[in-house]
Amino acid sequence: MERIEHRACFGGWQDVYRHRSAALDCNMQFAVYLPPQAASRVVPVLYWLSGLTCTEQNFITKAGAQRYAAEHGVALVVPDTSPRGDDVADVDSYDLGKGAGFYLNATQAPWSQHYRMYDYVAQELPALIEARFPVTDARAISGHSMGGHGALSVVLKNPGRYRSVSAFSPIVAPSHVPWGEKAFSAYLGDHRETWKAYDATELVKAASERLPLLIDQGEADEFLHTQLRPDLFKAAADAADYPITLRMQPGYDHSYYFVASFIGEHVAHHAKALL
Amino acid sequence: MERIEHRACFGGWQDVYRHRSAALDCNMQFAVYLPPQAASRVVPVLYWLSGLTCTEQNFITKAGAQRYAAEHGVALVVPDTSPRGDDVADVDSYDLGKGAGFYLNATQAPWSQHYRMYDYVAQELPALIEARFPVTDARAISGHSMGGHGALSVVLKNPGRYRSVSAFSPIVAPSHVPWGEKAFSAYLGDHRETWKAYDATELVKAASERLPLLIDQGEADEFLHTQLRPDLFKAAADAADYPITLRMQPGYDHSYYFVASFIGEHVAHHAKALL
Repeated sequence: MERIEHRACFGGWQDVYRHRSAALDCNMQFAVYLPPQAASRVVPVLYWLSGLTCTEQNFITKAGAQRYAAEHGVALVVPDTSPRGDDVADVDSYDLGKGAGFYLNATQAPWSQHYRMYDYVAQELPALIEARFPVTDARAISGHSMGGHGALSVVLKNPGRYRSVSAFSPIVAPSHVPWGEKAFSAYLGDHRETWKAYDATELVKAASERLPLLIDQGEADEFLHTQLRPDLFKAAADAADYPITLRMQPGYDHSYYFVASFIGEHVAHHAKALL
Repeated sequence: MERIEHRACFGGWQDVYRHRSAALDCNMQFAVYLPPQAASRVVPVLYWLSGLTCTEQNFITKAGAQRYAAEHGVALVVPDTSPRGDDVADVDSYDLGKGAGFYLNATQAPWSQHYRMYDYVAQELPALIEARFPVTDARAISGHSMGGHGALSVVLKNPGRYRSVSAFSPIVAPSHVPWGEKAFSAYLGDHRETWKAYDATELVKAASERLPLLIDQGEADEFLHTQLRPDLFKAAADAADYPITLRMQPGYDHSYYFVASFIGEHVAHHAKALL
């Protein structure tokens, strides 16, 4: 593991590391923000999963989350959104292949060799972080768009592993929207029953624990009615008696200006559960 | 003037406009953040001048300043860093030509046709902003690196026009550092006496007013001792009895992580003078 960026930020350190991932069988980069408190004690971790086309850079340069992480004493860990490298399968498409790993374990060729982002974000990366950084095993997770799908599905598939979850503009029902149908049919094959294992709106029906769950969704989001559909998740959660907070935010779109505007409240949401 | 971006952000609007600049004789883009207060009344303006290689995008996507502008009720206006377009002179260099206008009026061919960023940021843009947006004529100005040079020199050349000034990691003595010597010799010619008209460390010696002046400088900035030299400005200001606040910030480098970490204090510095 090699540190490739190291920058002072809000009294702590915004770092980026490169390492060899066993789950993904390729070299990966991830970002870690260590708040000032981490200089003298261990701190809990908020994981952030980014959306389509992103790397580990988007969130750390655009969201302004470090301010709030420093206020609360929470570390931020931000993985990339897919396996990377010349020998990793890809297509000329922003919503499939590199930059579009969808936080699942692919079962179909040519994707199955490297596209195991679920194992990476749910197991390998937390194990690495907890072994090598001054952090506790108290975990929370959030994300944006495809990363909101990742955060919700990882939490729902791993009872007992996280303290809280949140999402911005998440894809909540990938089996029922074009982005999800395209990715899931490529990565998981055409048998739709297998898709349910990564579909938050399916997973919430059988959830065995209740975590603090916050979703913010911009009402002016250009993808709201076609790709995101938080109403589907809300209905399923209501039916399952899983209390969630879904906030529709007038005027906001799908961009990081939206994330930046509310990330402080999300960090506070997680800090309350973590600390 | 055409609005090309319009995004909700911290209760206000982060917009980008394209217009024809008379001073620069080309099409330009600038960004405007209108805080929530601007929906019901006029607000003062903080101008931000960016550094080498930047456009109007860097500050608005990376600094997180909108949060503080919204708290205080201050608009942010962010121009590009040089004239733009296919017919604008350029060289294959990050520190001369496009992206490196140095906020001066060039006198030498081929630069003098378009490179008049001083007139643009000191006169044309404020006149446009004050005519077309819900703002007062209370102005403050800040900037980063080359833009810190811009902020300091524009203020010192225009007594009575601004209420306050600040800078992050500014080039303060362009006549005495490689970036400045390269740019000034190209834009202004080899007669160094003419350079003094844009050199903050020269200008402060004859300053006729005293504004609240704050400079933050990272001690781990890779350009501190070669290109920035805030000590030269501090010595000149002290000799001229111009009180300035120069803060050396341990650990911080030249990046927007540094700007983001302290922009809240800069916005507060300006809000105190503006409101």
